[in-house]
Amino acid sequence: MDKVNLAEKLDTFSEHWSPRIVGSYNGNDIMVVKAEGEFTWHSHPETDDFFLVLKGEIDIELRDQTVTLGPGEIFVVPKGVEHRPVARCEAHLMIIEPAGTPNTGDPETAVTKVTI
Amino acid sequence: MDKVNLAEKLDTFSEHWSPRIVGSYNGNDIMVVKAEGEFTWHSHPETDDFFLVLKGEIDIELRDQTVTLGPGEIFVVPKGVEHRPVARCEAHLMIIEPAGTPNTGDPETAVTKVTI
Repeated sequence: MDKVNLAEKLDTFSEHWSPRIVGSYNGNDIMVVKAEGEFTWHSHPETDDFFLVLKGEIDIELRDQTVTLGPGEIFVVPKGVEHRPVARCEAHLMIIEPAGTPNTGDPETAVTKVTI
Repeated sequence: MDKVNLAEKLDTFSEHWSPRIVGSYNGNDIMVVKAEGEFTWHSHPETDDFFLVLKGEIDIELRDQTVTLGPGEIFVVPKGVEHRPVARCEAHLMIIEPAGTPNTGDPETAVTKVTI
């Protein structure tokens, strides 16, 4: 049972849109991710999607609005709602999803989430 | 669907050890809490307990070790593990628990969690 320093974990990799698992909570993966540029439009039919910005700024584009998040701000995309994260400059996030959730909403295109 | 600025929510109240609900994720309450002094020893038999420090420092005392958390650090107390949070000075946290979880581990002594 160790604590996790999120910034230290983020310092260990540089890839964008490639979540790293840093902890577990009731079957959910706690992850950090570096975002830059446009991710793909997707939704998660079975789960909400939790975002906390640690550094930088990210737009969570929804079909009818865009939610811009800065450090210390959270947003939960409800299950089934289409969204596209877009970061004009590199942003660092903590995200939470049930273990095994494909980050693109589609197992075919999802990245493998590595534990660090 | 609004974003939540955690610091702005924390600015709206001053009570210690009185979590405020600021969001929901898959049936879990996302809460902010101000901690100062010693909380009670307790455990949650049915759920892990997620802590993220936003400001200040907190000790999560376990029976066999103490985990000291500063800003940007997370710790998950596994279900059933006795713990006591202690903050020498005021600390601000984000915590996540399934909706309805008593903060003391005991519905008799738990505070009512208010949504803000």
